[in-house]
Amino acid sequence: MARRIGIKDVAAAAGVSTATVSQVLNRVEGKRIREETRQRVWRAAEELGYAPNGMARGLRTRRSQTIGFVSDEIATTPHAGRLILGAQEAAAAEGLVLLLVNTGGDDALERRSIDMLLQRQVDGVLYAAMYHRTVELPGALRTTPTVLLDAGSPDPAVPSVVPDEVQGGLAATRELTRHGHRRIGLVVQTEDLPARQGRLRGYRQALAEVGVAYDPELVAAEKAVPFNTVGGDVEAGYRAARRLLGAKRRPTALFCFNDRMAAGAYRAAAESRLSIPDDLSVIGFDDQELVCESVHPHLSTVRLPHYEMGARAVARLLALVTAPDRPAAPDTDAKELLPCPLVARASVAPPSCP
Amino acid sequence: MARRIGIKDVAAAAGVSTATVSQVLNRVEGKRIREETRQRVWRAAEELGYAPNGMARGLRTRRSQTIGFVSDEIATTPHAGRLILGAQEAAAAEGLVLLLVNTGGDDALERRSIDMLLQRQVDGVLYAAMYHRTVELPGALRTTPTVLLDAGSPDPAVPSVVPDEVQGGLAATRELTRHGHRRIGLVVQTEDLPARQGRLRGYRQALAEVGVAYDPELVAAEKAVPFNTVGGDVEAGYRAARRLLGAKRRPTALFCFNDRMAAGAYRAAAESRLSIPDDLSVIGFDDQELVCESVHPHLSTVRLPHYEMGARAVARLLALVTAPDRPAAPDTDAKELLPCPLVARASVAPPSCP
Repeated sequence: MARRIGIKDVAAAAGVSTATVSQVLNRVEGKRIREETRQRVWRAAEELGYAPNGMARGLRTRRSQTIGFVSDEIATTPHAGRLILGAQEAAAAEGLVLLLVNTGGDDALERRSIDMLLQRQVDGVLYAAMYHRTVELPGALRTTPTVLLDAGSPDPAVPSVVPDEVQGGLAATRELTRHGHRRIGLVVQTEDLPARQGRLRGYRQALAEVGVAYDPELVAAEKAVPFNTVGGDVEAGYRAARRLLGAKRRPTALFCFNDRMAAGAYRAAAESRLSIPDDLSVIGFDDQELVCESVHPHLSTVRLPHYEMGARAVARLLALVTAPDRPAAPDTDAKELLPCPLVARASVAPPSCP
Repeated sequence: MARRIGIKDVAAAAGVSTATVSQVLNRVEGKRIREETRQRVWRAAEELGYAPNGMARGLRTRRSQTIGFVSDEIATTPHAGRLILGAQEAAAAEGLVLLLVNTGGDDALERRSIDMLLQRQVDGVLYAAMYHRTVELPGALRTTPTVLLDAGSPDPAVPSVVPDEVQGGLAATRELTRHGHRRIGLVVQTEDLPARQGRLRGYRQALAEVGVAYDPELVAAEKAVPFNTVGGDVEAGYRAARRLLGAKRRPTALFCFNDRMAAGAYRAAAESRLSIPDDLSVIGFDDQELVCESVHPHLSTVRLPHYEMGARAVARLLALVTAPDRPAAPDTDAKELLPCPLVARASVAPPSCP
């Protein structure tokens, strides 16, 4: 089962020389080989499962046709699948494959992993964070075309693809204001992340659009413990929502920092005997389907565009690889923001007591 | 940014010959090179970000030190992350990297993807299904060491790693019987999958252990539409549980085919004004954290061992690659079953009316 089929095997099976096999399979022009012979070679190659030697070819062309995908915490988030899929499908459309490494946030492992990729002469590297944050680009990547994925860099020249958190926060809050809500609570984490800053700005913009003054009393921040876990977020969302719903003048709607916090808000609403969406509207962020469709009623949210981010990062990387020295157009920002579309389900309705 | 650093650059920076650089970096024994020179070469290589040419080395050793990971539907399930992570970390521990391709279940794309992997001379291939089922091994993989991951083959000689569905069903149902439940409903899909058959067998075994006769009236099967989606499963679970809970003699506990169906059962319980776990115990299957911790009370379940399956599949594959002609030990089954451990959370308690 394990011996690799070689060109000699194909030649023997087709009854031709290895030179003929090579000319047929490499589609060398101008060689007089009869069509019948060509077909016999192709048939033999197919029957034997022969694959031409891409490694030797990569060596000749000085391009490996592979892209490295380095991520920190692929396992802890179901977003990973869609980020990787978006990158993988965009790469496949260009005949490239992804070499995947995962570092679990371990610096030494990250250095070794990146060295491994560079030894394999990847054409470029996608360096992905599993939630939107600022990262320092590893030194070993400074001489290799690299695009940050779901991460920003302190160096504004480093290309990156991230979600437009402000627009997302705006879209989520607008879904509530357009249903008539004016007293809108914000359920949020305490951790100072780009996502938190951006979504909060979007929330304030949407309120300003309908002439509502920002009221810090309506912002309930709770520390998620442990940080960035499902249980930590659900619990923090529960505590924050309980505070808002227990206030004398409670909000008629909640914008939750993410879907897990919204799941916690559902529990707080149930304890306060508030029915969603009749007594209380709730909107989340992320579009984690497993959360949104496991709770009842299904949670309206805005979607983090992970698939699109993966695909765009590959496109940006290919542009770097194929035209490394072309300066970026003056209107091109190294950081590209992708929109977060609204996903309306069943948790938003007009307020019962406007 | 894009020019690749070569051995000549290192030699120039260190002020030595390329032969010396090669001897130092390849740790060639028996060469008299002063320690100070060695250190200068290493420092220059590190500062320049030089990576030795793994592609050329692979060509010499006839091993590419890469493993292909072919999957069908990485995006539609959050299990994907842990399957891939398990495989990736086990591979990294052996100095190998994963080449990842995803086919979305498209046969033509799958053929092209596998050809791409074979051209890159992967040492072997993991062929992963994103839920446990029977697959036909693609023809192109018949001459390459291959291990099926979360999938079985009609050919019993094809190595595969799958969850032990019977043991998992047994563990889940035992968690209910050991709390004193005897009237246990089964909420299940209609699709005839290995998971369904195995978990049902485990359920019957656990009942038999406590002397309870299997009662088909307690098995509620509903077709999940659309199949294998979050929403389809939640809805099917809701309908199946509603039937069981509306019966004259309702079950005191439900074993649900998966966590999504259990989320639907939570809704049915709420509608029947049954409190979980006081009036009704519920256990799921899979351990999809996003579901289990988003519902209240948190869902007890058994865990599909995705990380372990990924890691074991790599170990099996390496055994094939390094000793391809050694026959398997007579007591080794080509299909390896990994146990599904109980994950107790808060949805199981003794029956209120035993």
